[in-house]
Amino acid sequence: MTAATPFEFEVTHRNGRARLGTLQTPHGKVQTPLFMPVGTQGTVKGLSPQEVKDAGSQIILANTYHLMLRPGEQLVADHGGLQGFSGYQGPFLTDSGGFQVMSLGHLRKIREEGVTFKSHLDGRQIELTPERSVQVQEALGADIIMAFDECPPYPAEREYIQRSLQRTARWLERCLSAKTRPDQALFAIVQGGIHADLRDESLALTLPFDTPGFAIGGLAVGEPKEEMYPAVAYTAARLPEGKPRYLMGVGHPEDLVAGIALGVDMFDCVYPTRTGRFGYALTDNGRINLNASAARTQMAPIDAECDCYACCNFTQAYIAHLLRAEEMLGPRLLSLHNIRYLHRLVERMREAIAAGQLDTWATTWGATYFRGTLPAWFARALDEAKQPLPG
Amino acid sequence: MTAATPFEFEVTHRNGRARLGTLQTPHGKVQTPLFMPVGTQGTVKGLSPQEVKDAGSQIILANTYHLMLRPGEQLVADHGGLQGFSGYQGPFLTDSGGFQVMSLGHLRKIREEGVTFKSHLDGRQIELTPERSVQVQEALGADIIMAFDECPPYPAEREYIQRSLQRTARWLERCLSAKTRPDQALFAIVQGGIHADLRDESLALTLPFDTPGFAIGGLAVGEPKEEMYPAVAYTAARLPEGKPRYLMGVGHPEDLVAGIALGVDMFDCVYPTRTGRFGYALTDNGRINLNASAARTQMAPIDAECDCYACCNFTQAYIAHLLRAEEMLGPRLLSLHNIRYLHRLVERMREAIAAGQLDTWATTWGATYFRGTLPAWFARALDEAKQPLPG
Repeated sequence: MTAATPFEFEVTHRNGRARLGTLQTPHGKVQTPLFMPVGTQGTVKGLSPQEVKDAGSQIILANTYHLMLRPGEQLVADHGGLQGFSGYQGPFLTDSGGFQVMSLGHLRKIREEGVTFKSHLDGRQIELTPERSVQVQEALGADIIMAFDECPPYPAEREYIQRSLQRTARWLERCLSAKTRPDQALFAIVQGGIHADLRDESLALTLPFDTPGFAIGGLAVGEPKEEMYPAVAYTAARLPEGKPRYLMGVGHPEDLVAGIALGVDMFDCVYPTRTGRFGYALTDNGRINLNASAARTQMAPIDAECDCYACCNFTQAYIAHLLRAEEMLGPRLLSLHNIRYLHRLVERMREAIAAGQLDTWATTWGATYFRGTLPAWFARALDEAKQPLPG
Repeated sequence: MTAATPFEFEVTHRNGRARLGTLQTPHGKVQTPLFMPVGTQGTVKGLSPQEVKDAGSQIILANTYHLMLRPGEQLVADHGGLQGFSGYQGPFLTDSGGFQVMSLGHLRKIREEGVTFKSHLDGRQIELTPERSVQVQEALGADIIMAFDECPPYPAEREYIQRSLQRTARWLERCLSAKTRPDQALFAIVQGGIHADLRDESLALTLPFDTPGFAIGGLAVGEPKEEMYPAVAYTAARLPEGKPRYLMGVGHPEDLVAGIALGVDMFDCVYPTRTGRFGYALTDNGRINLNASAARTQMAPIDAECDCYACCNFTQAYIAHLLRAEEMLGPRLLSLHNIRYLHRLVERMREAIAAGQLDTWATTWGATYFRGTLPAWFARALDEAKQPLPG
């Protein structure tokens, strides 16, 4: 499972630490960097598969935990996998279920063997192990599957983070042994929280497996950005150049800008659809609250620069009306716009990288987005992105 | 406002009492018979305007009562009317607000001047009169607007129905006096409940106004089909040949078949979207309940003959999963399919009428839909549709 043809990753441009690349998958070639919308239960909330594709999506993330509980991985397999089930004919990535299971709190128990938990749907006792996670992910049939890892919360004891990253490495080995499908790439996950030395330890335990991609896990779990970005920068800089790097669960606009600058290739987050359902629209000028009374008479679209269906056809006043009237089309249009906004953001960054202008582009974008002054963590990330790689 | 060029109606084919026609409106020419999806609050629940159009919709109905309360007709007028507001660029029809106001029960008071009611949103006291209804409908800017009428409930005293149809005729005169826009057609409404002599009285009071279309009101308000269809047949047969006939608030599949056979040209109903949100799909074989456990493993689409997005891309099992998971896409796909189903039903009837085969087509369709035996009311309606017109 080293980078053989089916998952060939090619870096085509570099600009500072940022890069452009292409990744071959069984369901098509994708351009990196990229943002993956989240289809938790086999649907990106509020969007049809056609809208997901039209918005510029390249890979959809689906959740192993949710789908194994309902409808069960066998039904998905009976449809020929996630594509046949969900109607989205492009590449998929599934998480391992680990993150959801860990966040069940007192409903779960972690042992070396795996995690025992009670289903949030019916209280049924279920065991998820590295082997079982791979088995479910093979039934779901995504192009990219993830190692079953332990993701400590924030804050957590240093010692716990260390024990946990060591266990994550042992679980990675079990995942790889359990894996049978050659048409799926398994990405390993580097843990270690916000501690450089623990990241080093996790890297040392993980990199030798030479998986076709590596994820940066254990971040965006509650720590401030001032602590998160040094860890992103540190880890991304030590991952192999020739493999895609995936920063898990991250995807506010400012995170995509900082993360891409630091050399991350892949992101996922429920944020664009969730904040859309709550009535918020993402723009270069920050979030617009369509629930606010000012929106009710606003005759402009959300974003005159945006090419999405919502911005091409509707005023803010109409969308605000839909929200007040509790009409499904309101959350739907905002989810659609927000997904498109993130894809357009990444597309603009790809152009800036190709032109060797990323630092200027990101600084200008940040000045608008943050209304003048760049936050220290953001400025530092852009600065670090210009530094030569260690070693 | 007699049938001048902007609203020219032409009957192109006849088959028994059924007919095919074209109706010119300021936003395009439509083919009759037709079914109008209901966009109560300026959106057809669950569908985007593009989906509404792609499903084969020709006219959308919007509700004056709902829109005058929220967002207020002025905001819609500021958008250039319903098209600019809702993003649907085709013809619209607005009801008068009368039906909604009447159904407020103890929250409203009917006088000769009009109806005083308390808003269901904020309890505010509001008066709706024939003049005010026309004023609001002119601001909303639909192609077809409806007279402000009184629709008695079922059952109601004969005497009340008679007083009410006389008042409806006086209100029609006031509506026409209040009307100022030449680019809107106002349709009169014939009342009289299920009583032939009261229908005669209403027709005698209404037809002289020679409005560009006539609606059959006061039906589908709770009476059995055995009482409703004789009234539809009686009234439709006495409306002018050269004007479109609109059966208000009606739109189960069997109603479209019987109504079109009896010479009705236009229908509207919330049924396809409402039943879709509840998890039901319309087919020639009756309704499928996607909430039922049988649907969870059904690998076929809802209807293999259907060309809608839902049927071309998804299994029943997937849609059943979406419903259980409370994902927006479930009600959305079912609403879309149901609207498309009704449009396809009408399209097939148009072909049968053009071929002079409607009776055979409707009998065959009914045998499948009702699983063998046609209900008496349906058989009688098809039989009556073959009889020569009275007079």
